[in-house]
Amino acid sequence: MKVYGDSQSGNCYKVQLTCALLGIEYQWQAVNILQGENSTEDFLRKSNLGKIPLLELSDGRCLVESNAIINYLAYGSHLLPQDPFMLAKVQQWQFFEQYSHEPYIAVARFIAKYLGMPENKKAEYQSKQAGGYKALDVMEQQLQKTDYLVDNNFTVADISLFAYTHVASEGGFDLSKFPAVKDWLARVQLQHDFIAMLDS
Amino acid sequence: MKVYGDSQSGNCYKVQLTCALLGIEYQWQAVNILQGENSTEDFLRKSNLGKIPLLELSDGRCLVESNAIINYLAYGSHLLPQDPFMLAKVQQWQFFEQYSHEPYIAVARFIAKYLGMPENKKAEYQSKQAGGYKALDVMEQQLQKTDYLVDNNFTVADISLFAYTHVASEGGFDLSKFPAVKDWLARVQLQHDFIAMLDS
Repeated sequence: MKVYGDSQSGNCYKVQLTCALLGIEYQWQAVNILQGENSTEDFLRKSNLGKIPLLELSDGRCLVESNAIINYLAYGSHLLPQDPFMLAKVQQWQFFEQYSHEPYIAVARFIAKYLGMPENKKAEYQSKQAGGYKALDVMEQQLQKTDYLVDNNFTVADISLFAYTHVASEGGFDLSKFPAVKDWLARVQLQHDFIAMLDS
Repeated sequence: MKVYGDSQSGNCYKVQLTCALLGIEYQWQAVNILQGENSTEDFLRKSNLGKIPLLELSDGRCLVESNAIINYLAYGSHLLPQDPFMLAKVQQWQFFEQYSHEPYIAVARFIAKYLGMPENKKAEYQSKQAGGYKALDVMEQQLQKTDYLVDNNFTVADISLFAYTHVASEGGFDLSKFPAVKDWLARVQLQHDFIAMLDS
């Protein structure tokens, strides 16, 4: 099993963290997106739109989209609920992450940290702040009621949201206004076999 | 079971279509987002960020995010594969839809059709075209190889992508360049118990 990714990417970190927590071994293939390594003809054959992370199974079958990959890896494990409604709740948070969280918090972080906040991106960076804070508000409301996003059990939904929330400050977001989110971040970091995100 | 939605919304249509195909009965509660009916205090208590569609079970539990809802409704049915990898492929396409398709094709359609293309939205509308065509390209490549998005079986992934693709022309997208997508749209419409999208 091979994972293609960039260790600066929260989406790729989701896969690394899931594998660590479940004791899954894999080969890591670094892909530098800033240098366009995800846009080669060979890579595009494996991955829609050159997306990373990309999971390649030993038989050559490929899977993209970080949340689909971690759900596949966690299939049958304690990280994925068996109950259909709870399973749907996990997916609810993951779709929320991709539509209402990542496009604000991860993109603001990308502009600030990796592009170095160029002048022509400042307006876009600013435009991401309100949406990012709205997403953090939604998380705060949930985490004031439950220890984890789906009830009181740690699931892949927590991995999906942890990835960019724990580095939200790098996108200019002040987490001090979200005490339940901060407590939850600490709880995730205490999971057995937790690994930190490795910036390359 | 109650579904809160707006019949102009492709995301809400996904739920209506899934229920029709599976013979699931539900009560429909119209919510007009242009009139802010999704922003009332009562509605926000049920739904993160006032999102529709919202599924409310008879015991009061609520679920949002269209793709999470249809996966819940389709649990155990022929619309959701049993094989873990195929199940992951379904989710791959659904995450692709929410991140790389809906934000372009559905938003362009919303600006053109529902906002009436106001002057201050024209630049945003134009900025959506390239991403929308990229998403259609990815679908075309897959559908040149298989009858449906996940292999040759009709799944909820097809429902997720059909919702906004079949009305993409309303967002200015010319589908004549995508013959495999057009053939697939016709195949989806031939499903037993298929219902069309009802604009209110």
